[in-house]
Amino acid sequence: MEFNGKNYSGWQKQPEQSTVQGEVEKALFKLFGAPIEAHGCSRTDGGVSAEEYVFHFDADTKLPEERVAFKLNRFLPKDIQAQKSVEVPPSMDARKSLKSKTYVYSVYSSPHKRPLLAHECVQVEQPLDLEKMREQAKALVGKHDFASFRTVGYESGADKKSTVRTLYSVEITEQEGVVKMYFCGDGFLYHMVRILAGTLVAVGTGEEKDLAALLNAKDRSLAGKTMPPKGLRLYRVEYPSPDKKTMP
Amino acid sequence: MEFNGKNYSGWQKQPEQSTVQGEVEKALFKLFGAPIEAHGCSRTDGGVSAEEYVFHFDADTKLPEERVAFKLNRFLPKDIQAQKSVEVPPSMDARKSLKSKTYVYSVYSSPHKRPLLAHECVQVEQPLDLEKMREQAKALVGKHDFASFRTVGYESGADKKSTVRTLYSVEITEQEGVVKMYFCGDGFLYHMVRILAGTLVAVGTGEEKDLAALLNAKDRSLAGKTMPPKGLRLYRVEYPSPDKKTMP
Repeated sequence: MEFNGKNYSGWQKQPEQSTVQGEVEKALFKLFGAPIEAHGCSRTDGGVSAEEYVFHFDADTKLPEERVAFKLNRFLPKDIQAQKSVEVPPSMDARKSLKSKTYVYSVYSSPHKRPLLAHECVQVEQPLDLEKMREQAKALVGKHDFASFRTVGYESGADKKSTVRTLYSVEITEQEGVVKMYFCGDGFLYHMVRILAGTLVAVGTGEEKDLAALLNAKDRSLAGKTMPPKGLRLYRVEYPSPDKKTMP
Repeated sequence: MEFNGKNYSGWQKQPEQSTVQGEVEKALFKLFGAPIEAHGCSRTDGGVSAEEYVFHFDADTKLPEERVAFKLNRFLPKDIQAQKSVEVPPSMDARKSLKSKTYVYSVYSSPHKRPLLAHECVQVEQPLDLEKMREQAKALVGKHDFASFRTVGYESGADKKSTVRTLYSVEITEQEGVVKMYFCGDGFLYHMVRILAGTLVAVGTGEEKDLAALLNAKDRSLAGKTMPPKGLRLYRVEYPSPDKKTMP
């Protein structure tokens, strides 16, 4: 599924708010005529988009698997659209079976605002030293306590239990003035990607930051700022088997 | 200058309509306190955006050249923003001095709508055979009579005089599902890029079209459909000298 998160308070259902899960469950109800819960692969923050979001649900239907996406799209809003649907074994779970997630954070560096990038990138007024960013990003890769890189006070249950996560890779690309930072990991703390992006931007604009020392310090106040949600996208989700969950 | 053309009836001033030139001249008036005409590098159709648009104007000012862009941006709307400003010799003219223009037309091929591409790409429901498109596109390069590839009845003066134009190159790229067709030439007839794009999409989806024969036929009815404006952008404008006009 691909969605533009601009008009939603994230994936997870919340009373009195428009959420992606809320819209998906409304569409499932219209399609199957019964209340069906959509189990998402990840919470996403309000305003965050997804190029690839996976959820699963249980339904008793004779629809061929690939038709479900087409049928569902008729009932989904324009900014949320299924891209594919496949039947999976009952043991598969969109969240629990997940092997890795990749988020991408996009910025452009220019003293002037760029109207064509306004909706999906954040402006950085200073030039960015990508080599410095890539060099420092190496310290982030691996299994670490990321306590320096999360917003305290709004932790989910998982965040309270442990702030140790594994980052499999950090890649930084540049194309036509747009700098993209890809973070692939087994899981992310609250605001973790937005703070990692803010810290790498600080490095790139010349602030003295040693990311290895920052990890060791376990002190949020030493990291960079939390970047705005509009630059963030869930980019890819991976499962161990070639099977994906219903409705990628 | 970069602008999102969605809310404008093209560059050129028209009574009772929002146009890019109209907004730029309003901003010039606010900045310099006198009516100043903005001379654009190209007409653009309504709804068409530009990653790089150049215009020139004459003003008597002590502002350092690079400050003009910053000052002007305060008076321009968010969807039109100068990216650079340089002083040029009086002989330079944004339109007449132009060496080449490159337009890009963007589509994505998917049976499902993609929300994150909705504003800048046009959906093609069938798969696209890019090799076939590239092969046929070769026939377009060079100096040709492009009478088959223009909308008849709304020609500008230049279109009435001659329908011969030179295409320097056609490049077709694909990245993460987005297919971009770049057309670089010395000038374009009314709707020419949108019809060329529509014809290449027809080729890519398996319609039998021989573009060399189509050029010779000089018959608009044989070409593909005129694609919608939202997929079109003015991508680059080039001038013979390293000097660009004021306000790229």
